[in-house]
Amino acid sequence: FQPLLAGSFLVDKGNYRHFMAKEIHEQPEVVGRTLAHYLDLAEGVVRLPFEFKFDPRTLSRVTISACGTAYYAGLVARYWLERFARLSVEIDIASEFRYREAPLPENGLTILVSQSGETADTLAALRYAREQGQHILSIVNVETSTIARESDTVAQTLAGPEIGVASTKAFTCQLVVFACLALALGRARGVLSKERERELVAELVAAPGQMAQALAHEAQIEPVARDVARASSVLYLGRGTAFPLALEGALKLKELSYIHAEGYAAGELKHGPIALIDYAMPVIVLAPPDASLDKTVSNLQEVAARGGHLILIGSPHARDAAAAELAGFIEMPEDVAGPFAVIVYAVPAQLLAYHVATFMGKDVDQPRNLAKSVTVE
Amino acid sequence: FQPLLAGSFLVDKGNYRHFMAKEIHEQPEVVGRTLAHYLDLAEGVVRLPFEFKFDPRTLSRVTISACGTAYYAGLVARYWLERFARLSVEIDIASEFRYREAPLPENGLTILVSQSGETADTLAALRYAREQGQHILSIVNVETSTIARESDTVAQTLAGPEIGVASTKAFTCQLVVFACLALALGRARGVLSKERERELVAELVAAPGQMAQALAHEAQIEPVARDVARASSVLYLGRGTAFPLALEGALKLKELSYIHAEGYAAGELKHGPIALIDYAMPVIVLAPPDASLDKTVSNLQEVAARGGHLILIGSPHARDAAAAELAGFIEMPEDVAGPFAVIVYAVPAQLLAYHVATFMGKDVDQPRNLAKSVTVE
Repeated sequence: FQPLLAGSFLVDKGNYRHFMAKEIHEQPEVVGRTLAHYLDLAEGVVRLPFEFKFDPRTLSRVTISACGTAYYAGLVARYWLERFARLSVEIDIASEFRYREAPLPENGLTILVSQSGETADTLAALRYAREQGQHILSIVNVETSTIARESDTVAQTLAGPEIGVASTKAFTCQLVVFACLALALGRARGVLSKERERELVAELVAAPGQMAQALAHEAQIEPVARDVARASSVLYLGRGTAFPLALEGALKLKELSYIHAEGYAAGELKHGPIALIDYAMPVIVLAPPDASLDKTVSNLQEVAARGGHLILIGSPHARDAAAAELAGFIEMPEDVAGPFAVIVYAVPAQLLAYHVATFMGKDVDQPRNLAKSVTVE
Repeated sequence: FQPLLAGSFLVDKGNYRHFMAKEIHEQPEVVGRTLAHYLDLAEGVVRLPFEFKFDPRTLSRVTISACGTAYYAGLVARYWLERFARLSVEIDIASEFRYREAPLPENGLTILVSQSGETADTLAALRYAREQGQHILSIVNVETSTIARESDTVAQTLAGPEIGVASTKAFTCQLVVFACLALALGRARGVLSKERERELVAELVAAPGQMAQALAHEAQIEPVARDVARASSVLYLGRGTAFPLALEGALKLKELSYIHAEGYAAGELKHGPIALIDYAMPVIVLAPPDASLDKTVSNLQEVAARGGHLILIGSPHARDAAAAELAGFIEMPEDVAGPFAVIVYAVPAQLLAYHVATFMGKDVDQPRNLAKSVTVE
């Protein structure tokens, strides 16, 4: 199911070996374009391309439902919606949500996320929420899709056609739309000051440039990728917004390299997965500079103390704080910090999965068993 | 940290090789004892050993926070609290929840779950919820614990001392307490009829006997365990309440056998993990007879179509419906059905992990790197 290939224009790989490489490298551009669509760049504030058709001040709760990578974008968004808009957020996988008979509140907003806008379980979740009288907002990449047509409000990601089966640029564009939505809701609800909004918008505006910087350091990822390619199992750890990114990083590795990678909340390490630690299994730790950095570092040191095979994605400060023997280090600029750092940290996670898979000779644009959009249950 | 060993009585293994085996086999007894504590068996209705110190009818939301196995018990409980008490439930891992600054509603109830009652992150989550003015209810096995002392209401699990590091009987007792709580809240909120309550209580009362039946078929699990022991990676799938049980079954395998097992919502299979399917990796499918059985069977058939190594835990009807070549089948009685079947299905998941680990010669009572209760962050 690739409506964009069947359209009136041709999508090609340009100078890249794979669509996926091209799409990873397009991110500074499409994230910038999506930001420009949702921001007033002259004023340095958010300006949504639509009006809310509900009263944000009386909004009782936000429910998010999606599948796969889009679900992980929603998990990241929960932190932002809570913090910047002081909204309660309930989130669940669409294939579970649609059957759970969850009671949904009056004046509730349900947000569905889907690149294609045709994901069967997400569409069913939309229809359930509709029956329960929820306001329906969808974040989709394809504006003419079924999910877009059945929504009260459509927030489009301007990622352009995504051909690689494993989602990359659609994910970071979904994050950007969620970030703008959280700030707009915060302002409309009177819980986010103009000053704070300007600061946060400035951080968002910096993201495309930071992504370009991260892409420029692609060469340092290759030796790490060759190391990970030898593994049959990988753990991916993070805290806060880096926890869903750990889930997404692991999913990318699964999809492309068929290595069994699993994302875990770093704080849950001691409640089970620490038993897996040995010298062979890479443990990839996402450690952006935020309030939870010292907790993440302490989890990293627990892995080190048990002779674990550590790979750190973080700033030089994080590496120094870790004070542990690292089998690999993917350096991120020190100034990629704050609540939106996760958008930039997605880049090394995607590149790592891409290089592991190409080094292993896998077909990254069309991994085995996978379809681009899952239009059946 | 084993306060129960340090007490005035001695806990021994009886005729079992390991504490864990003893504790798995004690479940019909301790689940029965816990049920008797929360039910009026003569009337066939729920009768909690405490009064609610809040008005269940004006309850705005339930928030659940816990770590590890106790968190998975909470994930199961969400389905019951939604369905039987029509309550909205938000749930998160304690190590994430405590740092998220989540807005919590007025008239909200926060439920903390911890076997030891000393889990550091769960205690921190309790204190955050307390500051936010939530009513605090804890489900603990140790009544004198810090979490119990700091709660408004304590719902004790009568599991007795749990010595094996991997939780088994505490988990099923937590489920039973949650089930009774959901029914009591449903009745108090006027959304559960007396007739339906009696039917559901009858199902709960049947659980200990069904668990004894499941235990009596332990011998059929051994050949399946020898097969799984050869794997380095395992996927565990389920839908509805069987999804958190898949997470718990995978956690038990991780903790005891150091095999990298991962639990996944069966509906998410097509959004990534299906790429991992090959002839070698066991895919364990939990398929209790419920409304989602045909969807689960269809996921199972997708695995079969890709030559996957399938192990089914289900009834003969599920096996027949699957109509697929199975590498292993753990048969459950047909009448273990309905919303509480998950309590009984926990038994084969525990026994499987136990037998895989003992076959591999692992120290199941004291797995490497793990502590019984995590009293530091």
